Amino acid sequence: MLNGSSQVSPQARAAVEAAIVELGYVPNRAARSLVTQRTDSVALIVSESQERVFGEPFFAGVLRGINSALIETPLQLWLAMAASPEQRERVEHHLTDQHVDGVMLLSLHDDDPLPGMLRRRRMPFVLGGRPVRLEPDDAFVDVDNVAGACQAVEYLLGQGRRRIATVAGPQDMEVGRARLAGYRSAVAEHDLDLVAYGDFSEAGGSAAMRSLLDRAPDLDAVFAASDLMASGALRVLRETGRRVPRDVALVGFEDAAVARQTDPPLTTVYQPVEEMGRRMAQLLIARIAGEDGDSHVLLDTHLVRRTSA
Amino acid sequence: MLNGSSQVSPQARAAVEAAIVELGYVPNRAARSLVTQRTDSVALIVSESQERVFGEPFFAGVLRGINSALIETPLQLWLAMAASPEQRERVEHHLTDQHVDGVMLLSLHDDDPLPGMLRRRRMPFVLGGRPVRLEPDDAFVDVDNVAGACQAVEYLLGQGRRRIATVAGPQDMEVGRARLAGYRSAVAEHDLDLVAYGDFSEAGGSAAMRSLLDRAPDLDAVFAASDLMASGALRVLRETGRRVPRDVALVGFEDAAVARQTDPPLTTVYQPVEEMGRRMAQLLIARIAGEDGDSHVLLDTHLVRRTSA
Repeated sequence: MLNGSSQVSPQARAAVEAAIVELGYVPNRAARSLVTQRTDSVALIVSESQERVFGEPFFAGVLRGINSALIETPLQLWLAMAASPEQRERVEHHLTDQHVDGVMLLSLHDDDPLPGMLRRRRMPFVLGGRPVRLEPDDAFVDVDNVAGACQAVEYLLGQGRRRIATVAGPQDMEVGRARLAGYRSAVAEHDLDLVAYGDFSEAGGSAAMRSLLDRAPDLDAVFAASDLMASGALRVLRETGRRVPRDVALVGFEDAAVARQTDPPLTTVYQPVEEMGRRMAQLLIARIAGEDGDSHVLLDTHLVRRTSA
Repeated sequence: MLNGSSQVSPQARAAVEAAIVELGYVPNRAARSLVTQRTDSVALIVSESQERVFGEPFFAGVLRGINSALIETPLQLWLAMAASPEQRERVEHHLTDQHVDGVMLLSLHDDDPLPGMLRRRRMPFVLGGRPVRLEPDDAFVDVDNVAGACQAVEYLLGQGRRRIATVAGPQDMEVGRARLAGYRSAVAEHDLDLVAYGDFSEAGGSAAMRSLLDRAPDLDAVFAASDLMASGALRVLRETGRRVPRDVALVGFEDAAVARQTDPPLTTVYQPVEEMGRRMAQLLIARIAGEDGDSHVLLDTHLVRRTSA
């Protein structure tokens, strides 16, 4: 490639630049990027459907944090959604240093080809969430999902609950696995493993709750790996005549707006989504500026007590 | 500019291309765009804050329609939000034919510099909503807001309502003015002009409703220019002890999900938001392919009767 690569001699570069000037060339950004390697654009790629991205407050929160960090820079943020392998392949073509200075990836699934592609291209990038295979030099921002989930379940144990189930998230995502691991570490001594899986959505939470009740009608507590899933689980608990928290205590994860809107309001694990976005953007800015090395940010969570547990 | 402009002779273009090839040039997309003028990218610029874009179902609906039209093309969609003049200026730098093949603009305000800039650059673009100054060759997709609003108010008149107020939208947007014009044309014979303004948000609807009740405590119907504003107005009507629809009939505009969730559910004017997005993308694809001329699409609305009026 022409731009900035050491394989092009200064003389060769000068010759091309002279030829272009001679032709009455007017600078434009794409051409300028051949020389300066700066586009002043960064991309946020969310590996989910636009239904999920617009339907779940997590994404709006992260985006708010990203914007708060970018607002004082000249960087323009471009958002693309890539839910399917085809869409990820399509977006891949556009993530070159002629288009963007850096990339943030959100909602990573294990089979996502984008981190590997970005590593090969030596494109500055930051992952929102720890990837399944962490490579040296990877930068990521995540919340301490294991600790947060563990805290939620220990709280339920402390309340005297003993038949504690979990509505776990997708297991092809680190966030899903980590929250399940937190549940399992907390209940390890109690010979419990009441697990059903959802996709972080409200409907997924309802379906998983029905499955849990079929298998363990005597359960007395549920830890759901997202507030939306907790909200779906809550609906099923009420439909089946169970009082929350009296019969079944319920804890969610995120502290999204929905956690204050359910009846009863949800006890949940707060995760700092705006902070996550802000730190992602700050790390990306640093990487674009040439700062290398491991950059792993793990943000703390804490339990927010409301009425559901 | 080099790319495709008639000011560059074929000879000059060939000379530059030869110089580049001689230097061992490997094609990349930004450089290729200097020759082929195709980036396979299109941009959607929404002139609102990300809070509004993520908070209002209108935007997700339009985006769903756009995606449904793009999915069978090689075009990658990039979304940017530009709520302030500074952000619009920033995004302007990136809307060149080295970056995108075409642009869709949504939620236009009168002072938005982007349509004028795109016209000057001869960049293919499509407007979501009619602009304040329509130029020959402009392409836009809009719903027939005047007719829709008129229909809503005539329905209220048909129900025997005579003190009909309106919560109008922002008057620096054609959609706000058109819906107010529809209200005014319907009530013209009745010597009515009960107007308060909101920003299409729920909070804006509440504030406008309070203002209307201060001025006209005896009003017996309200047409709100969006469902979210109707939802905000509904809350204030109930807080002030008014029964809906018995004391005050209420009609919204959009037929968003919220219209089915309020108590009572909203009678509202349906606007086809997905269709709007789909037609915008189809028009843009045609323009990128070189089809010129006026392209004005005006989509029909219809009244959806529920309980609030």
